Amino acid sequence: MRRTRSIPTRKESSAAAAHFAAEPLMDRVGFLIRRLHQIHVALFVQQADGMDITTIQFTALSVLHQLGEIDQSVLAVQVGMDRTNVSEVVRRLASRGYVKVRINPTHGRRRLIALTSAGLAFLKKADDCARIAHDRTIAPLSPLERQIFADLLRRLVREQNSLGRAPLRLK
Amino acid sequence: MRRTRSIPTRKESSAAAAHFAAEPLMDRVGFLIRRLHQIHVALFVQQADGMDITTIQFTALSVLHQLGEIDQSVLAVQVGMDRTNVSEVVRRLASRGYVKVRINPTHGRRRLIALTSAGLAFLKKADDCARIAHDRTIAPLSPLERQIFADLLRRLVREQNSLGRAPLRLK
Repeated sequence: MRRTRSIPTRKESSAAAAHFAAEPLMDRVGFLIRRLHQIHVALFVQQADGMDITTIQFTALSVLHQLGEIDQSVLAVQVGMDRTNVSEVVRRLASRGYVKVRINPTHGRRRLIALTSAGLAFLKKADDCARIAHDRTIAPLSPLERQIFADLLRRLVREQNSLGRAPLRLK
Repeated sequence: MRRTRSIPTRKESSAAAAHFAAEPLMDRVGFLIRRLHQIHVALFVQQADGMDITTIQFTALSVLHQLGEIDQSVLAVQVGMDRTNVSEVVRRLASRGYVKVRINPTHGRRRLIALTSAGLAFLKKADDCARIAHDRTIAPLSPLERQIFADLLRRLVREQNSLGRAPLRLK
């Protein structure tokens, strides 16, 4: 008994050194969010097997589908990407013929991006995969829980939007 | 009126082309998860201003703090990183003297990773930043909602763990 008392448990010694760092990863919201994002991406890649599309490419294509031809900086804001990332995504999509890029005639340094018909066909093909991946991401929850989870997520994103490095332009 | 009827609304034409791609991003759980992860990372970077630490480095250091010296592959599993990413994180932490790497004497091709005293001091310094970043990530919710959100997240991660590319070893 004496020995048990004099040697601090791992939890106690960890707590003495660094409180938060001692908490189990599964109790840390930030860790869980990163993990769930990994799982969602994996589900998407798995569903879209062989299509060679990422979640971010799907998001970019669907924004172009919804909004028509837009400035590259608008695309970045809509999707929540920074300037470097949006350039890379556009470059990849353009190299596959899914988007076309042209210089804005009224602003020589700005680029306008539009979905091509090949891009639309590709988006249609990926559409079911995306829906299935989204549904599977929250499949372990009951319908009511899914709704609660989505509502809480939406509130967190909406209310903290300005904090991210690439804030979305929300209505 | 006739014109209004004959021209499909944007929503209708989008739905005809691709159902899921027509849904607003703020209604897609996958998009919201990616976004909240971005926000959490931004909050962490902001809190840890000048410390030059990422969320993943903090996670890796705290796992080493909790478990002591471990095989690099165990670290990867605990943190949910694939082999390439864990190598890069370890290389960066070692270059700053926060972890030490040695060849496993019984398995010549395996590497053992341990926290150094400099690493522990750094972890302690980052600890408050990490807690504040975690708390701020869910700050817009009420205490009860935070608990519900964390519980739902934990269930999703736990039940779908095997689906990720780098599954965690859960108890």
